[in-house]
Amino acid sequence: MAEFDLIEAIRVRCAGSRDDVRLGIGDDAALVAVPLGQDLAVCTDTLVAGVHFPHATAPFDIGWKALAVNLSDLAAMGATPAWATLALTLPQADASWVEGFADGFAALAREYKLALIGGDTTQGPLTVTVTVHGFVPGPLALRRAGARIGDAVYVTGTLGDAAAGLRCLDPKDAAADRLHVAPATTRDALLARLNRPVPRVACGAVLRGRAGGCIDVSDGLLADLAHVCAASGVGAELDAANLPTSSALLGLFDDAERAALQLAGGDDYELCFTAAAQDAGELLTDLARSGCGATAIGRIVAGSGVRVRDARGAPLVLSRRGFEHFT
Amino acid sequence: MAEFDLIEAIRVRCAGSRDDVRLGIGDDAALVAVPLGQDLAVCTDTLVAGVHFPHATAPFDIGWKALAVNLSDLAAMGATPAWATLALTLPQADASWVEGFADGFAALAREYKLALIGGDTTQGPLTVTVTVHGFVPGPLALRRAGARIGDAVYVTGTLGDAAAGLRCLDPKDAAADRLHVAPATTRDALLARLNRPVPRVACGAVLRGRAGGCIDVSDGLLADLAHVCAASGVGAELDAANLPTSSALLGLFDDAERAALQLAGGDDYELCFTAAAQDAGELLTDLARSGCGATAIGRIVAGSGVRVRDARGAPLVLSRRGFEHFT
Repeated sequence: MAEFDLIEAIRVRCAGSRDDVRLGIGDDAALVAVPLGQDLAVCTDTLVAGVHFPHATAPFDIGWKALAVNLSDLAAMGATPAWATLALTLPQADASWVEGFADGFAALAREYKLALIGGDTTQGPLTVTVTVHGFVPGPLALRRAGARIGDAVYVTGTLGDAAAGLRCLDPKDAAADRLHVAPATTRDALLARLNRPVPRVACGAVLRGRAGGCIDVSDGLLADLAHVCAASGVGAELDAANLPTSSALLGLFDDAERAALQLAGGDDYELCFTAAAQDAGELLTDLARSGCGATAIGRIVAGSGVRVRDARGAPLVLSRRGFEHFT
Repeated sequence: MAEFDLIEAIRVRCAGSRDDVRLGIGDDAALVAVPLGQDLAVCTDTLVAGVHFPHATAPFDIGWKALAVNLSDLAAMGATPAWATLALTLPQADASWVEGFADGFAALAREYKLALIGGDTTQGPLTVTVTVHGFVPGPLALRRAGARIGDAVYVTGTLGDAAAGLRCLDPKDAAADRLHVAPATTRDALLARLNRPVPRVACGAVLRGRAGGCIDVSDGLLADLAHVCAASGVGAELDAANLPTSSALLGLFDDAERAALQLAGGDDYELCFTAAAQDAGELLTDLARSGCGATAIGRIVAGSGVRVRDARGAPLVLSRRGFEHFT
């Protein structure tokens, strides 16, 4: 497959169709129009093979996830997805790999009418960088810096499933024995969270202009909530017993393992946000109506850093607080 | 150097300061405002170590070039640079490497008051993806599809220097002997074109609304002009004897080698554009005033593809027409 055919295989699947794309894939740059009254939200995330996903991951899942992790960042700003560019570095131009990758990217892009407007394909070690663009009226955008003392801390969906899914893939992991006797649906549920994360775009839209601080949980709840606290000049206390837990996770891991997966596991792509107590009732109802509810897991306090209490109120300390490169 | 320190080393050097950046590096996404009446031009380019630059390239030059190749695409649209995101994948977080890289990126960014608004740093094989954003009033944007039969074909600056610079770095290259006896300034001039390309942003601004078809020369003149021809439904004839040549190139290579470097060498980052003969005089004067003149190298004709004639008018055929991945 020559470079041109590779680009064409991606274009036919992912280019989409939007009136605000004046000039799409195929020139030196794309030309797009931002609607009046909207700021543009821009972010970029890279997935490196063997670091952000196992080498054996299906190309469809890599394409899906490369877009999902970026849409998750837009969701955490309360932005509506619009356009993306794709920088794809591959060892060789394998037609079925590229088609599978583009199918996965396109499957998620379609859900948001997102258009792929440009990119670059190069030869090298498998690395995928997506840059996404969305719209949000500036004053309503969700920021990390908006948490206030007394706010409750919430998280959408459930935590820890993706990290548990990663453990499922490690034959040397002690959980593997338990997994072998668990129903196939358990393993499937956890791997789906790892390989096809669902960005909480609808939740972000509900929270727009209403939440305090907000972030998406990508590196691990403790690490990500710590960013909210640092940006807001506050601290947080979490109750481990209140962390929202899927039935798949509940059946496979004891309390200590589960807390580690949920607090430091990463790859959840849920939204963690804060809100004043008096706003919470209506907000939670609206979130549940949008398709994904949220759970109160703690509170914002004076000070700095994130502390966790176990079910008996005792401090819970983890050896590893989240994913960081170069450590 | 931890991931946070690495990001901070880049941020302090490259974040810049612009009123239209509502929220810069440090949240889930940046928030920016596009001026009224302007379309947004967006493009992305990746540099892979060992593919797009030799492994031994100085970090400053890698940072410069990663931004330059993207600004060159904006120039080819006639767009004014505004913002960039940076996805940097590196094997280890070496402080002096990262600082050198950021210094190079920042040196070029400052020339255009460009702000780095976001990015991602990950661990893996050295790969740099930059996405740039610029402004251009949509109807004035330069497109590949604007070449018309009878237009003259022009190119800014000189061609072939970067490709000659790459040959300077290969000790097995036959040109190496000639280089050893050439003045040091010759080698320096060619390597500067390879490592610190100057995007023709000012030329693009002059050409806005006035050129026919336009593209930047990145893969090689023949390959890139062929894109203009295909998009415009026309062909082109070039005169090899008219290709603009630096004195460094002239002193080192014979006619045949020089033509190959200039027609298929790539990495020139000049603008190749077409214009109707009656517009050419004033356009060339304005280009020269902007700091970089242009040279007529051929004409747009009916048909398809790009043909080259040598100094005697005979067809000149190259074995390799430009750089392509996966071939």
